[in-house]
Amino acid sequence: MLNFEFCSPTKFVFGRGTQQQAGRLVREAGGTRALVVYGGGSVVRSGLLAQVLASLDEAGVAHVELGGVRPNPRSGLVYEGIRLCRENQLDFLLAVGGGSSIDTAKAIADGVPYDGDFWDFYCGKAKLTRALPHGCVLTIPAAGSEGSNSSVITHEDGDLKRGLSSELHRPRFAIMNPELTFTLPRYQLACGITDMMAHIMERYFTNTPDVALTDRMAEALLLSIIEAAPRAMADSTDYESHATLMWAGMLAHNNSVGVGREQDWASHHIGHELSARYDCAHGASLAVIFPAWMKYTYTHDVARFVRFATVVWGVERDGRSDEEVALAGIAAMEAFFTSLGMPHTLADVGGKEEDIPALTAKVVNGKTGHFVELLPPQIEDVLHIAAKG
Amino acid sequence: MLNFEFCSPTKFVFGRGTQQQAGRLVREAGGTRALVVYGGGSVVRSGLLAQVLASLDEAGVAHVELGGVRPNPRSGLVYEGIRLCRENQLDFLLAVGGGSSIDTAKAIADGVPYDGDFWDFYCGKAKLTRALPHGCVLTIPAAGSEGSNSSVITHEDGDLKRGLSSELHRPRFAIMNPELTFTLPRYQLACGITDMMAHIMERYFTNTPDVALTDRMAEALLLSIIEAAPRAMADSTDYESHATLMWAGMLAHNNSVGVGREQDWASHHIGHELSARYDCAHGASLAVIFPAWMKYTYTHDVARFVRFATVVWGVERDGRSDEEVALAGIAAMEAFFTSLGMPHTLADVGGKEEDIPALTAKVVNGKTGHFVELLPPQIEDVLHIAAKG
Repeated sequence: MLNFEFCSPTKFVFGRGTQQQAGRLVREAGGTRALVVYGGGSVVRSGLLAQVLASLDEAGVAHVELGGVRPNPRSGLVYEGIRLCRENQLDFLLAVGGGSSIDTAKAIADGVPYDGDFWDFYCGKAKLTRALPHGCVLTIPAAGSEGSNSSVITHEDGDLKRGLSSELHRPRFAIMNPELTFTLPRYQLACGITDMMAHIMERYFTNTPDVALTDRMAEALLLSIIEAAPRAMADSTDYESHATLMWAGMLAHNNSVGVGREQDWASHHIGHELSARYDCAHGASLAVIFPAWMKYTYTHDVARFVRFATVVWGVERDGRSDEEVALAGIAAMEAFFTSLGMPHTLADVGGKEEDIPALTAKVVNGKTGHFVELLPPQIEDVLHIAAKG
Repeated sequence: MLNFEFCSPTKFVFGRGTQQQAGRLVREAGGTRALVVYGGGSVVRSGLLAQVLASLDEAGVAHVELGGVRPNPRSGLVYEGIRLCRENQLDFLLAVGGGSSIDTAKAIADGVPYDGDFWDFYCGKAKLTRALPHGCVLTIPAAGSEGSNSSVITHEDGDLKRGLSSELHRPRFAIMNPELTFTLPRYQLACGITDMMAHIMERYFTNTPDVALTDRMAEALLLSIIEAAPRAMADSTDYESHATLMWAGMLAHNNSVGVGREQDWASHHIGHELSARYDCAHGASLAVIFPAWMKYTYTHDVARFVRFATVVWGVERDGRSDEEVALAGIAAMEAFFTSLGMPHTLADVGGKEEDIPALTAKVVNGKTGHFVELLPPQIEDVLHIAAKG
């Protein structure tokens, strides 16, 4: 186990009807004037936004709205939000939505007290030391941004998708009502399921020895997601499976299962370039890249992939070799993603084999991954496997 | 899954050499003048106290010392600590030790800003609304107080042992260096292992349906503890097993595995009366009471005890009935506690069968437990089972 610091200070308010507590929670976190950040029409149509605004009114929290966040959130709306906060002297960001709304709110929170361009923090030109406080009402279990220290923004200028991790990115509170996810389009839920599984697997595949405790916790999360996913996909009113997915999605990314161990993150880095170029959902890009990454790297630690296959996917040995069992585990995961309706090949998300050099060239710093370090030729190999499927 | 709030805001600083960061962490938490609370000679003899004080000096944190905390910490030292804080205008409590030192620090933190008797909070006469901030350097993995919202104090006047849960009881930081536990007497480590397992099991035995995720996380912790315990008991310099126990002990009690589910706590309530009367270690009392409680309650939900037996203790069915498998799981746990050198019967901790009515009379409110509610006659039954072993 490696030395680590872990602090997940967010107050998670979980369960039915909890959106009614938004005003109280903003107040408790010191907010008096909030920018409410959200995406498209569903938050409006469902009446959720109205409920949240009513709760703010009741608590005496003034508010300004910023709608229009879209998947793979863009820098343009961040600049707009920073302007609104400054003009209206707002002191709190409240996101109502999924990871895109939350990450947009985090980036606005970063930018408001900073004299320069908020993008300085995301491209590494400046270090974040101050940010406005923020909270969220979660409607999509996926990104884990409700409990994580990360935010991912795509800059319109060059389709650069960059993440920024900072302890200032931990929300003060996260309202998590599983019922709010009942109306999610099932494709979006499937993308979220894939994303949260990827967050766990990025941590699971490690070279750090003696991490049995976090291994078991990661497996507990994966098994629970695999069990809940088909129930939730099949019945959009099943509270318990949606609750399991919502809580698992937070635990998958607040680093509960990542402490004290080296983590990989190559699949995310490569996947980000797919999303930025083809504007495919983050989860969809991971469904394409993660199996390809596994097929390329499993020989690095066959025993870990055998464990993954047997514990997580229930693969029986059946007298097969370790390599065969490891590959059967990867195949089981691919079949699971397919059962969710996820894409499988590069072409499925609109990619072409001839784009591979350009995609590779954009992966941050030209290398990625810790379980296995990938340089550009290896990144191209992974993408070629993804092209074949 | 039940609605819940979960907030574990403590900054956990885990690993080798982390005690050197005490001064920085007190400063970050806003402390400038600290009361350093500790127990007996080992913290002094090992040089740990000197290292911590040096770190405070380096960070410019003034400090006053309060040693002499003993197991099942008493109210006397709490009053003394409150007096010292007021006289010296101290603004931070730093515990160096295990649960007894941390709980003493928490109780002092409660009492300093309060005009009345701090015991008012513990006996339910007043509600805690303010407390000084506090942190800790953990030396005993057991009570989980480094991450929990609870504090347990015994009042000298009547041997009343009472717990108080409050979100104000979450430490600002917890320094967790597994090497600091190498020098623990093995009996004390065994008590700690028993205690952390009990914290998980109090949450595991529930009537709440659809809690597969937290069930699996609880099992992940128990399996990891059961695996690490013999390694740590046999080799007091084995870093990894001590690290696993230390981190598991925190997770066992910060409520990670208790969210959204009804919890029991009867064994703790009954055990507290054993500790208060016979001054036996908290873990020792649990090793006596928990198996007895299980033998008394397992018929309430045999399926859950079958799962406990098979998943946690690896009990094979071998064509046996559910009841037999459930009992085999309880027997496996008893054998494990015995292998740690834990007591098994009431007599082993100095108890007598004729004390049972008096012990029962002291259990808070005369009833306890949620998995199965126990009234005085049932509490006596559990104690009689404990007397037989």
